[in-house]
Amino acid sequence: MKQYLDLEDIKDLDSLIKNGITLKNNPFNHQELGRNKTIGLLFFNSSLRTRLSTQKAAQNLGMNVMTLDLNTDSWKLEFENGSIMHSTKAEHIKEAAAVISQYVDIIGLRAFPTLTDKEQDQKETILKSFQKYASVPVVNMESATAHPLQALTDAITIAEHSLVKKPKVVLSWAPHPKALPHAVPNSFAKVMQMMDVDFCITHPKGYELNSEITKNTPIIYNQDEALEKADFVYAKNWSSYAEYGKVLSKDQEWMINLKKLNNAKFMHCLPVRRNVIVADEVLDSDLSLVIQQANNRTYAAQAVLKEILENI
Amino acid sequence: MKQYLDLEDIKDLDSLIKNGITLKNNPFNHQELGRNKTIGLLFFNSSLRTRLSTQKAAQNLGMNVMTLDLNTDSWKLEFENGSIMHSTKAEHIKEAAAVISQYVDIIGLRAFPTLTDKEQDQKETILKSFQKYASVPVVNMESATAHPLQALTDAITIAEHSLVKKPKVVLSWAPHPKALPHAVPNSFAKVMQMMDVDFCITHPKGYELNSEITKNTPIIYNQDEALEKADFVYAKNWSSYAEYGKVLSKDQEWMINLKKLNNAKFMHCLPVRRNVIVADEVLDSDLSLVIQQANNRTYAAQAVLKEILENI
Amino acid sequence: MKQYLDLEDIKDLDSLIKNGITLKNNPFNHQELGRNKTIGLLFFNSSLRTRLSTQKAAQNLGMNVMTLDLNTDSWKLEFENGSIMHSTKAEHIKEAAAVISQYVDIIGLRAFPTLTDKEQDQKETILKSFQKYASVPVVNMESATAHPLQALTDAITIAEHSLVKKPKVVLSWAPHPKALPHAVPNSFAKVMQMMDVDFCITHPKGYELNSEITKNTPIIYNQDEALEKADFVYAKNWSSYAEYGKVLSKDQEWMINLKKLNNAKFMHCLPVRRNVIVADEVLDSDLSLVIQQANNRTYAAQAVLKEILENI
Repeated sequence: MKQYLDLEDIKDLDSLIKNGITLKNNPFNHQELGRNKTIGLLFFNSSLRTRLSTQKAAQNLGMNVMTLDLNTDSWKLEFENGSIMHSTKAEHIKEAAAVISQYVDIIGLRAFPTLTDKEQDQKETILKSFQKYASVPVVNMESATAHPLQALTDAITIAEHSLVKKPKVVLSWAPHPKALPHAVPNSFAKVMQMMDVDFCITHPKGYELNSEITKNTPIIYNQDEALEKADFVYAKNWSSYAEYGKVLSKDQEWMINLKKLNNAKFMHCLPVRRNVIVADEVLDSDLSLVIQQANNRTYAAQAVLKEILENI
Repeated sequence: MKQYLDLEDIKDLDSLIKNGITLKNNPFNHQELGRNKTIGLLFFNSSLRTRLSTQKAAQNLGMNVMTLDLNTDSWKLEFENGSIMHSTKAEHIKEAAAVISQYVDIIGLRAFPTLTDKEQDQKETILKSFQKYASVPVVNMESATAHPLQALTDAITIAEHSLVKKPKVVLSWAPHPKALPHAVPNSFAKVMQMMDVDFCITHPKGYELNSEITKNTPIIYNQDEALEKADFVYAKNWSSYAEYGKVLSKDQEWMINLKKLNNAKFMHCLPVRRNVIVADEVLDSDLSLVIQQANNRTYAAQAVLKEILENI
Repeated sequence: MKQYLDLEDIKDLDSLIKNGITLKNNPFNHQELGRNKTIGLLFFNSSLRTRLSTQKAAQNLGMNVMTLDLNTDSWKLEFENGSIMHSTKAEHIKEAAAVISQYVDIIGLRAFPTLTDKEQDQKETILKSFQKYASVPVVNMESATAHPLQALTDAITIAEHSLVKKPKVVLSWAPHPKALPHAVPNSFAKVMQMMDVDFCITHPKGYELNSEITKNTPIIYNQDEALEKADFVYAKNWSSYAEYGKVLSKDQEWMINLKKLNNAKFMHCLPVRRNVIVADEVLDSDLSLVIQQANNRTYAAQAVLKEILENI
């Protein structure tokens, strides 16, 4: 692996999942690999799990970590080519990415979508600009349309907890007061298509994800029907993709409760709004995997960083 | 020691003080203890001494350090059980504490009081919630009502500088333009009760601290009388506890000067407002211990972290 | 070297430049030097290159790094002696510098000028106060009037890329929408006076730098005439020094393009506003050294830190 911008950068998902589980059992076995290597974690947006778990993963591998909050520690960046930079943006991505590349061996990047400019979000301007102008590998710590470290985490978690050869996995939309990105459901849909699972998506009409991503994944508008005999229920809110960034429904009927779950395992990427996305009774039960999922963030990141370090 | 929420977690104060002094002489002697261990320092409020000294203490012990500013780096946390989280708080403490516990081996937590909601402050909601839902030891880096790392620092400093077997120690209220917390005077009063000292408190009427903490400590309303023959004078402002969070007096007569100090040693936890709390002539004299006190913050934290690491 | 406040702290520039280049080839050769040593990086202002490159330099030397953003992580500092601190400033520099000195072995400090109070800026109040009250070496990471780490970087870069024994170096003012400090041009002028180069400065009338710094450096008001036969062109905007902090001109005729450059190497400290300070065609050509310059920031800092560590 030479970078990790999206799931397409994975050559062999099964082996990457196995590496993650191996690293979980022996996290400190490869510290020579990261010795005198530095990862720079660049945040355009706030983060708890990603910040801590990626830092932990890098430290487990013996790396140094430098974090930079691009909204507070540094200047605003210009991403347009040819622009005359006489307004508020003090540095061009061309210089920023090239310069940072000289201080670090791997760049981790966190940059959310606008949710107002569909075209710009789809182009992944920030992520792709860093990839283009950086001279070191870039790792996506959630971008406008993808969260591949979360998806790898989710794949590891399902591999660990599946009791059957081909589990049924349901991605269910759930209500939320604010407009949320598509990065997590997009990447989860992608990674499920790469695994040997029976996968479907359920959401209210109007919440169809980008069809280039969901492809031939069954979409079932009736949540009860979709959840039938599920082994894993992955709840997540997202805003409309067609009416880009809009909140079309806050229908609490879509909240996951124990009855709906019906002995399936519950998954969510966190942070999760209790009693909005999912009832307390689910999160506080043994059916919830959300804490184990968050733990796997470290080992997903560590598996990716290890492969990249081996290719530097 | 399995946690350090408050002074009650200390089993043997004398031996902890001695450990602190031993670590001060040989700070790097126990680096194997912290190898591949990580402390997560979580800040709800700004901090200079606590942030740097706790980080230094952890690094002296060979630990990795991850800091997280919970107001800027992350989301707002919900602490109420059973709440329907549809407003501004994106994550519940149940998930946050459980998740962070998986990335770190010890959690350090800084969370000031509201000074407006007495009941909530007394309940130590943030600190106790982290303790309840975290699966790793929690260290109090100043909470709503207690600052036990500062108190241990103060105990070490008095032990180092006392010329007599049972010194007289006076905690004196001093004026300040803003309403300040009770954490420092509370914890100082507690730790003095645990040491073999002649301890009293002096303040204007209306500034009585929580009597469950001061217990039978003499309270002397006449500052001159209280300071007589003192060996150590610890100055500190706090707001009223009875009229919760109110500033009842800014009487500059209570400011400590050389005449009042009368050859006693001067202590303060810092930051200190010069010529409001204490005159320049005191801070700039050899009677002031405030810089040595701040230095001991590192070794107080290191003594606590060392004991916790030995019990993990 | 016992500190690095300004270029006067360099005893032998040639040997420091050589050390920088040696460290660039073997950055990890001196890790025992920094073992159990800590640098505290204090930022009053935002920073990208300085923050990351100084951190990298320290880590290359085996040091621990603690960063503190003094505007967000901590309290406001008082710098006046004898003041009665009853307003917004909660801590005096006397305590802050003395305390931080106990947690770190070297202090790195970043503090920009006001550009409104000439006298205060010229006095270098923040930098000099830290130097006065700190008990450990202070390194200037850009102050009100000087940026000596950048200047050393620039000297290393010219030494590396010069094809002739005594190159012609031109510092050219360039337009910019906002008022900028004099720190970079001041320090560049100083370091060029210390090297065996043919150095001149060009700028519109009214943009004369402090004559105590430029001394007998030729000032040529006609940019074309100044740039003739240049080997290195260093572009930089600064505000007026006489009419302190004022923007007297935004004349785009002063922007550097390929025709003006005429095969000279192009230098800038970054961040640079494209098509305002310099045309895309220059930055995107092989004549631009700005990325190599930024890389040398690490090794300039590392050469300075190494010398200071050897003298602790």
